[in-house]
Amino acid sequence: MKTFSHQFYLTAAEVTAQREMPLSRLVTLIIETATGHANQLGIGFDFMISHGISWVLSRLTIEIKETPKVNHAYRLDTWIENFNRMFSDRNFEMIDEETGEPILWAHSTWMAINMESRRPSDLTALKGMSEAVNGQLFPYDKGGKLLPVQDAVIEHEYRFAVSDIDVNRHVTTRRYIDLMVDLWPLEQYEQNTVSRFEIAFKREARYDDVARAVAAPHEGSPEVFDTQVEVNSSPCALARIYFKKR
Amino acid sequence: MKTFSHQFYLTAAEVTAQREMPLSRLVTLIIETATGHANQLGIGFDFMISHGISWVLSRLTIEIKETPKVNHAYRLDTWIENFNRMFSDRNFEMIDEETGEPILWAHSTWMAINMESRRPSDLTALKGMSEAVNGQLFPYDKGGKLLPVQDAVIEHEYRFAVSDIDVNRHVTTRRYIDLMVDLWPLEQYEQNTVSRFEIAFKREARYDDVARAVAAPHEGSPEVFDTQVEVNSSPCALARIYFKKR
Repeated sequence: MKTFSHQFYLTAAEVTAQREMPLSRLVTLIIETATGHANQLGIGFDFMISHGISWVLSRLTIEIKETPKVNHAYRLDTWIENFNRMFSDRNFEMIDEETGEPILWAHSTWMAINMESRRPSDLTALKGMSEAVNGQLFPYDKGGKLLPVQDAVIEHEYRFAVSDIDVNRHVTTRRYIDLMVDLWPLEQYEQNTVSRFEIAFKREARYDDVARAVAAPHEGSPEVFDTQVEVNSSPCALARIYFKKR
Repeated sequence: MKTFSHQFYLTAAEVTAQREMPLSRLVTLIIETATGHANQLGIGFDFMISHGISWVLSRLTIEIKETPKVNHAYRLDTWIENFNRMFSDRNFEMIDEETGEPILWAHSTWMAINMESRRPSDLTALKGMSEAVNGQLFPYDKGGKLLPVQDAVIEHEYRFAVSDIDVNRHVTTRRYIDLMVDLWPLEQYEQNTVSRFEIAFKREARYDDVARAVAAPHEGSPEVFDTQVEVNSSPCALARIYFKKR
């Protein structure tokens, strides 16, 4: 199927103090839904690993008109916009099942990495990719290159622990994003929502690494911040977070 | 229905470096499944809150023969063993869907608290409770009173952040348990599994509280530890964790 859909109902156990889906959960849900579609297309993690390659999420941009709310039913649709030898562009649209209206959109860029050489694998060799292409575009700016944060004004140190480590012995995406989100106090989220989020994954952190999470205003904008999680001064993830007054 | 079942498939995205379900996820899954059954019985959070009362998990004991593993299908069954004015005893059994064998059991004690007076509400006044009682016992020791940890040998300090706060503005159960689990290094979990876990919830922590997580060997046993998360020297959660060599 060219479009894969994941339906869900957001319960009270899963939401923030603002009764909304946490940003880290939104990102992991996007990744899980992409995984579900890849599995359906026969190019999921299991198939890839049997060929010594693995999908790696390189870049993700989410444009949020409305954050998913508690006790609401939603549907997350995903499709492959396009691909070339190196990258696959996958888009997402979340629909409020009660109104039928889209509430957010996402664009992601994936690579397939050879686990031994650590080099990109040729996506055009993957059977089933071409037939799956839908072509429907992401209706917003995909975002440009994210650069390391200069002159950080917010900073937090954290040592990765057992509960932060995934099946590949790397730090989870959830932990990176929670470290970024946690740079601001609760009042920031009471007064603002996140209207757009861009993240680029640079390298993996591991158990017991000491991370530094930092943020700085983006070109002097009071509502946009550049943020990153780094280990030994080398960025693991770079992000840009756009706040909007409630 | 006297027994409520939740079926699930454990994916690679949800497991630890040991390819198993994290303890914090097991506990939140147990709570979610209890919530699902209470909703089905018409005594869920929504109904209770409309009467100014709320379910509060007071005590939980999990006996683990086998930790749920990646790429396996499971079923978690739950039922009400019994109840009186003050407490409701709810049991759980997890079945490996491939073998049909039970792999773990849990016993939980719940109270219904009046949100205004903070006093226990009379459970015998709840319609539908008596008919739902199944009576099937928890086949292990329910565990005795957990006392505050003395002479801690492991200690960690942590300030609760935005991502740790739930819809009621309290610290999440997941965060308490991850803080306890994270007191040990990764090697501990590579060499051991958790064979039994008991936890008692004492009071709620809040945003920006500074917690101290501590652990001490239980009566000199090398494989059993008492642990707690406390704020201002007052315990929020007390637990006992039993390790078993792999």
